[in-house]
Amino acid sequence: MPDLGALLSPQSVAVVGASPDTSIIRGRTLKVMLHHRYPGRIYPVSRSHSEVQGLKAYPSIAELPERVDLAVLTIPAATVPDELERCGKAGVKAAMIVASGFAEDKAEAGAAMQKRIAELAQRYDMAVCGPNAEGFMSAEARLCPTFSPAVETLDVPLLPERTGAGRVAVVSQSGGIGFSFFDRGRPREIPFSHVVTTGNEAALECFDVVDYLLDEGSAEIFILFLETIRNAGTFRRAAAKALQAGKPIIVAKIGRSEAGRRAAASHTAALAGEHDVYSAMFRHYAIIEGHDLEEMVDIAACFSAYRERLPAGRRVGIVTASGGAGGWIADASVAAGLEVPELDAETRGRIDVHIPSYGTSQNPVDCTAQAVRQLGYSKLASFVAASPRVDSVIVVVSARSAEVYERERANLDWVGRETQKPIVMWSYTLPGAAPAKILSAAGFPLIASMNNCARAIAAMAEYRALREQHSRAKESEAAPAPIRIDVARPVLCEYEAAPLLAQCGIAMPPSQLAKSAEEAVAAAKRLGGRVALKVQSPDIPHKNHAGAVALNVEGAESISRAYEAVLAGARKHRPDADIRGVLVQKMAPAGIEMIVGAKRDPVFGAMLMVGFGGIQAEVLRDTALAPAPVSIGDARELIGRLRARELLAGADIEALAATMASLSALALSEAVAEVDLNPVIVHPLGNGVSVVDALIVKRQDGRNH
Amino acid sequence: MPDLGALLSPQSVAVVGASPDTSIIRGRTLKVMLHHRYPGRIYPVSRSHSEVQGLKAYPSIAELPERVDLAVLTIPAATVPDELERCGKAGVKAAMIVASGFAEDKAEAGAAMQKRIAELAQRYDMAVCGPNAEGFMSAEARLCPTFSPAVETLDVPLLPERTGAGRVAVVSQSGGIGFSFFDRGRPREIPFSHVVTTGNEAALECFDVVDYLLDEGSAEIFILFLETIRNAGTFRRAAAKALQAGKPIIVAKIGRSEAGRRAAASHTAALAGEHDVYSAMFRHYAIIEGHDLEEMVDIAACFSAYRERLPAGRRVGIVTASGGAGGWIADASVAAGLEVPELDAETRGRIDVHIPSYGTSQNPVDCTAQAVRQLGYSKLASFVAASPRVDSVIVVVSARSAEVYERERANLDWVGRETQKPIVMWSYTLPGAAPAKILSAAGFPLIASMNNCARAIAAMAEYRALREQHSRAKESEAAPAPIRIDVARPVLCEYEAAPLLAQCGIAMPPSQLAKSAEEAVAAAKRLGGRVALKVQSPDIPHKNHAGAVALNVEGAESISRAYEAVLAGARKHRPDADIRGVLVQKMAPAGIEMIVGAKRDPVFGAMLMVGFGGIQAEVLRDTALAPAPVSIGDARELIGRLRARELLAGADIEALAATMASLSALALSEAVAEVDLNPVIVHPLGNGVSVVDALIVKRQDGRNH
Repeated sequence: MPDLGALLSPQSVAVVGASPDTSIIRGRTLKVMLHHRYPGRIYPVSRSHSEVQGLKAYPSIAELPERVDLAVLTIPAATVPDELERCGKAGVKAAMIVASGFAEDKAEAGAAMQKRIAELAQRYDMAVCGPNAEGFMSAEARLCPTFSPAVETLDVPLLPERTGAGRVAVVSQSGGIGFSFFDRGRPREIPFSHVVTTGNEAALECFDVVDYLLDEGSAEIFILFLETIRNAGTFRRAAAKALQAGKPIIVAKIGRSEAGRRAAASHTAALAGEHDVYSAMFRHYAIIEGHDLEEMVDIAACFSAYRERLPAGRRVGIVTASGGAGGWIADASVAAGLEVPELDAETRGRIDVHIPSYGTSQNPVDCTAQAVRQLGYSKLASFVAASPRVDSVIVVVSARSAEVYERERANLDWVGRETQKPIVMWSYTLPGAAPAKILSAAGFPLIASMNNCARAIAAMAEYRALREQHSRAKESEAAPAPIRIDVARPVLCEYEAAPLLAQCGIAMPPSQLAKSAEEAVAAAKRLGGRVALKVQSPDIPHKNHAGAVALNVEGAESISRAYEAVLAGARKHRPDADIRGVLVQKMAPAGIEMIVGAKRDPVFGAMLMVGFGGIQAEVLRDTALAPAPVSIGDARELIGRLRARELLAGADIEALAATMASLSALALSEAVAEVDLNPVIVHPLGNGVSVVDALIVKRQDGRNH
Repeated sequence: MPDLGALLSPQSVAVVGASPDTSIIRGRTLKVMLHHRYPGRIYPVSRSHSEVQGLKAYPSIAELPERVDLAVLTIPAATVPDELERCGKAGVKAAMIVASGFAEDKAEAGAAMQKRIAELAQRYDMAVCGPNAEGFMSAEARLCPTFSPAVETLDVPLLPERTGAGRVAVVSQSGGIGFSFFDRGRPREIPFSHVVTTGNEAALECFDVVDYLLDEGSAEIFILFLETIRNAGTFRRAAAKALQAGKPIIVAKIGRSEAGRRAAASHTAALAGEHDVYSAMFRHYAIIEGHDLEEMVDIAACFSAYRERLPAGRRVGIVTASGGAGGWIADASVAAGLEVPELDAETRGRIDVHIPSYGTSQNPVDCTAQAVRQLGYSKLASFVAASPRVDSVIVVVSARSAEVYERERANLDWVGRETQKPIVMWSYTLPGAAPAKILSAAGFPLIASMNNCARAIAAMAEYRALREQHSRAKESEAAPAPIRIDVARPVLCEYEAAPLLAQCGIAMPPSQLAKSAEEAVAAAKRLGGRVALKVQSPDIPHKNHAGAVALNVEGAESISRAYEAVLAGARKHRPDADIRGVLVQKMAPAGIEMIVGAKRDPVFGAMLMVGFGGIQAEVLRDTALAPAPVSIGDARELIGRLRARELLAGADIEALAATMASLSALALSEAVAEVDLNPVIVHPLGNGVSVVDALIVKRQDGRNH
C-alpha cells in the first residue's frame, strides 16, 4: 500500500497545469489552496507561465527544486497518463487527478487511460486518487486541492474553533455529494477532519482511504458515499478495524432502485438482490445506512457529540414547552424504533415542583414556556436525563434566536460536560447560526428535522447494541470443514443434494429414488405411512410449478398412479428434461414453512438467507441475510429480524437456527453458487425441523470445493 | 356559524389587557400588531394606562368609541370568561383568546371556564378562537394578534413581493407548530395567506376555519396540524369542499404512538386502531398526510407552484450534473413510489448533442457541469419535460450561490411560465437565500431534502389520481336500506348473524343449529359431505382459541364425538358460558382466507375493513380501511392497497369486493358496533367466496337500527 500520508498530509505540493485564470479549474484549484493558507510548499507547474497567482512556476515536474510529496493534476484527461508517469519518475509519492473522461466515458480510450493510471500507480508505488474526482480537503493540514465551491467560498476556518466534538471524515466516490456533506455540516459547527473524493478509483478505493484514516487517528466518525464496492477484502479490513476502534461509519450506497434481481435458478438468489447483500454486509460490521444528506450529517453530529456516551437502550425522554411539538416527536421516536416510557415517580416529583398545573411531567414532559423561562432547557433536560427510565433525552427547542441560550450558557456548558446520556436538541423553528454556535460549544447537537433527530438517537443505540453483540465474539469458532462436491452437473437436485447436506449435519426425511412405479410402491412400503413423490431432474428446479410433485399419497394403487402423474407432469413441463427418477419420501408432519438458502455474491462471497416460505416469500419478501459463516447465535438474530417472526412463536426456532448454521459449511464451499432448502418445515418446540426439498446450483467456473 | 371574517379580516380590533411592557405577552401582542402595520383601527383596553405604545387606551370594552369586530384577549385565564361576556354584550363579533389554564389544566376550574367560553360564544354568536392558542396571522389584512417570535422578529413583509404561487394557509391546534411552518416557509418565499392557531377549540374548530377560508378564497393550499378531530360533520364538510375546489390539504395528525388498540370483541376493532381510522378518512378525501415540518412545507411549496399543472402520473425525469447525486435521488424517487423510466430516443437525441461523451441522456440525465454551464438548468429541464415518457422533472442543482441562476434568469422565467409539467429543483448543497429568491420568482420550488423532493412529487401525483377517482363519483349510489336487528343480546354469534347477513345479500354455507349429538348427525346427513361443528355462544366470540370448533368431520360416529368434544372445549374454556347449541355447517372448499369487517368509530361512524385472515392478520396487520358505505369500486381499490395483494392473483376478487360492499348496509346500521366475517374464503376466479364465520357486536347504548 502506498503512502496516503503523502496524499493527505504532504509537506510539498505541485499543481500541474496551474493557471492564473481563476475562472477555470486549473486556476481555481490553486486559488482554493492559497485561500486556505496551506502552510507547506506549493509549486505551480506551467508550460506557459513563469509565475502563477504570485508563486514562481516551473516548466515541468522534473524541474522542481525538491521532490514533492503530492502532485495535483488539473490537466485534461488525455495528458494525464504521461504526466503521471513523469511524476512517478520524479519520485512524487502521491497524485490527485480531477479530470473526467476515463472509464465513465463512452469512448473506449477513457477506459484504457484509466487502466494505465492504475498500472503507473502500482509501478511507482504512488497513492493515486481519482480520476473524475473533485479533489479533497484535509483540515489539519489546511490543504484543499479542490475546485469545490463549498471550500472555495468558505469564509470561516476549515475547522470550527471551539469544539470538543469528534471529527468527521467524509470519503465519497462522488465529488459533488462528498463536499455537500461538508457544505451542510460546517455552518453547524461540525468539525470535519477530511473530505476525500475518490471518483473512478483507478487505484485508491474508498476503503483504502478509510483504512488509512483509521490509523492516522484524527477522524472519529466516517460518512461514506458509495456507488459500488470494488474489493471485498479492503472493505472487510477497514470495516472490522473501524468497529474494533468504535469509530462509526455512516454510509449511503446508491443503486437500490437498479439492483435488478436477476433471473435465478434458486429462490434464494432471486430473493437476495444486490442491495440486500450490501445491507447485510453493512449490518454485519455495524455500519449505519443513511438515506439523505442532512440525515447523515445529523447522525454524524450526534455521534460526534456522544461517541463515548452512546445510549444504553432505546428509551427516550422528551422535554418540551410545546405540547404539540412534543407529541409529534414522540410519534416520530416510536416510528424510528425508540420507546417513550412514562417517567418514574421520583423524577416526576422533581419536575412537578417547577411546572404550572397545565404542564405535565409524564413523557413527553410538557414543562411549558414558563418553566423554560425560569429554569432553562439544560436544567430541565438534566432532570429528565437523571431518570433511570430513559437512555437519552430529546429537548424540543425554538432555536431561531440566541437570547435564551445566552442566558443559560453556563448551565448548558455544565450539563453538556456532565451528562452521561445523550441530550439532543430538536428545533421546530428554523435554527439560527448563533444558537447553533452556543449549543455546539456546549456539546449539544442541534437538529432541524424531527425525524432525523429520532433516527440519529436510534442509530446511536443500534450501533452500541450491534457493537456489544460483536464483542461477544464468535471469531474463535472453528471454520466448518469444506464440503467436496463430486457431482459433475451444474444443478444438483434433491436426491443428490441430500448426502452433501447430511455431511453438514442436515438430515432430510427418509427417501428412496424410484425408477419405476413398482420401485416407488416398494419404497413407500419400506418407508411406511403417507409419502411424497417428486420428480428428480436437474432441468426442473421448481418441481411444484411443473406439477411434478404428489403429496400425502398412500396405498399401492395411489402410489402407482401418482408415479405416472408426476412423470407426466414433468414431461409436459419440459419434454427434453433429463429425468433421474422419482424420489419417494416419507411425508413430514405439518408446521411453519420457511426457506433457508445460500448464495455466493460476486463481491462478498457466501451469504446465508432465511425467510418465510411458499408464496409468501415471493410476495412479501420477508427475508433476512448475513454473510457466512453464521453461528447459531447469528442465526437466531437473523430469524429475529423477520417482520413476521411472531408467526414462529412456539415453534422450534433453535432447530431452525442450527440448520442455518450447518448450511454454512456448504455455503462456504467454493463450488457452490446457490442453495435452497425450501421448504424447511419448522415443528413445535422440541420437535425440530423437516427439510423437505433441496437444490444446489454449482459455480460455473469449474471449482470443485 | 358566526362570522369568521370578523375574526380574520376585521375593520377594528380591541386588545384587552394591552401593556406598554413588551417583554410580556400583553405588551408583545400589541407590539407585533403595530410592527406589521395593521391598517384598521386598534384600541388598547387597559385599566391602568390611558395610553399604550403610542395609542389612546380605554378602560373597558364598553367604552370604546365604536363597536369593534375583534377583541384580542391577552388577559389571564381566570378573567377571560367575564371579559368575554362583556365583549358579547358590547356587540363584539369575534374574540381571540391566548391564555393557558383551561381544559388542558389538571385543575377542574379550567374545564369549567372553557365550557363557559363555549356557551358565551354560542349565546352571542361570536367567532371565538382559542383558548390556549398563540393567536393568528392574516397576511392580506396585515393583522398579527400573536406573540409568536416567528412574526414578531420578521423583518420582511408577511407576503413575498414577487410570486404567482398559490397561497398557503396554516391552521393548527398547536401554536408553536403552527407558526413554525411559516417560520420555515417564509424565508423560502412561500406565500402564506394565514396562520391560525386554534388551541383548545372551545368554540371554533380547525375545520370551521378551513371551511371559512375555502369560501374566502385567498388560500389555495392548506397545512393542518391536528391533535384530534372533535366533530366529524365539520371535518367532512370542509374536506369535501376542499376536494371539490381542488385545494389540497396536507395534514399532520399526532397521537400515532398512543393510538392504543383497545381490547375488543372483534378482530376488526382490534386491527383498526384510531390512527388507521384517521388515515382512512384522510385518504377518502385525498388529504395528504405529512410526517415532518420541512416535508410538509416542501409539499405545500410544490402544490403552490403547480396546483394547476399537477403531474398526470408517477414517471419522473431527472436532470443532474453530478452522477452521484442523480443516482441517489433516483433511488429516493423509486422509494417514494415514483418511476424513473428511460427517456425516448427523440428526447435523448435532442439532449445528446449538448453533452460530452462522459455524460448520459438515459435517465437520470447526467448532463455534466459543462452542459449546465453552456445551456443552464432550465433549458436542460425543458428538454426532459418535453419527453412523453415523463410526468414531472427533478433538477439536481447546487443552489449555494446565485451566480448561475442570475445568468439564466430569463430562461428560468420562460420555462417556469411555459412548462406544463412540474419541474422541481433539489439542491444537494445548502440552498442560499439569493438562489431561492430567483427560482421562486420564476415559479420553481427549491427543496433542500432529496427525500422530501421525491415525496412532494409523489404527493402531487397521488392527489391528482385520487381526485380524479373521486370525480368519477359514486355519490349517486342509493344508500343501502338499514337492517333491523331484533336480537336483544349484545353479541350475536354466527347462527344469529347469518339471517342478518342474508338480508344484505351475504350468503353463508348451509348450516343448522343442533342441540344434541343426534340432531348434529341428522343435520350433517341432510347437508351431505364433510361438515364443521362450531359452538354457538355469545360468551365465546373466539371459538377457535377456545377449542370449540371441529372441521372436516364425516360419518355419524365422528360427528357425535366431535359434538361432545366441541361442547367440552367450550365448557372448559368458559364454564359459565351461555351455550346456544352447536352449528353444523357444510365445509367450504379451500381458498385464501381473508377477514372482512366493520366497526363504528366514535367520531367518524361506520368503517369497513379488509385484510388477510388468520394468524397473519394479527402478525402482519395487512389491512385496509375506508368509511362506509363502500361501493364495489371502492372495495376493489381497498383490496388493491393490501401489501400482499399479489397473493390474491387468480382469486375471485370481484366476489370479495361484492361481499365488502354488501356489508356496508349492516355497517351503517346504527345498532352495529362491530362485525367480523372471519374468515371469508376467497375461491378461484368465478367460484366466489365462502363466508364461514360471522360475529356481530351491537352498540351498548340501546339503539336498534
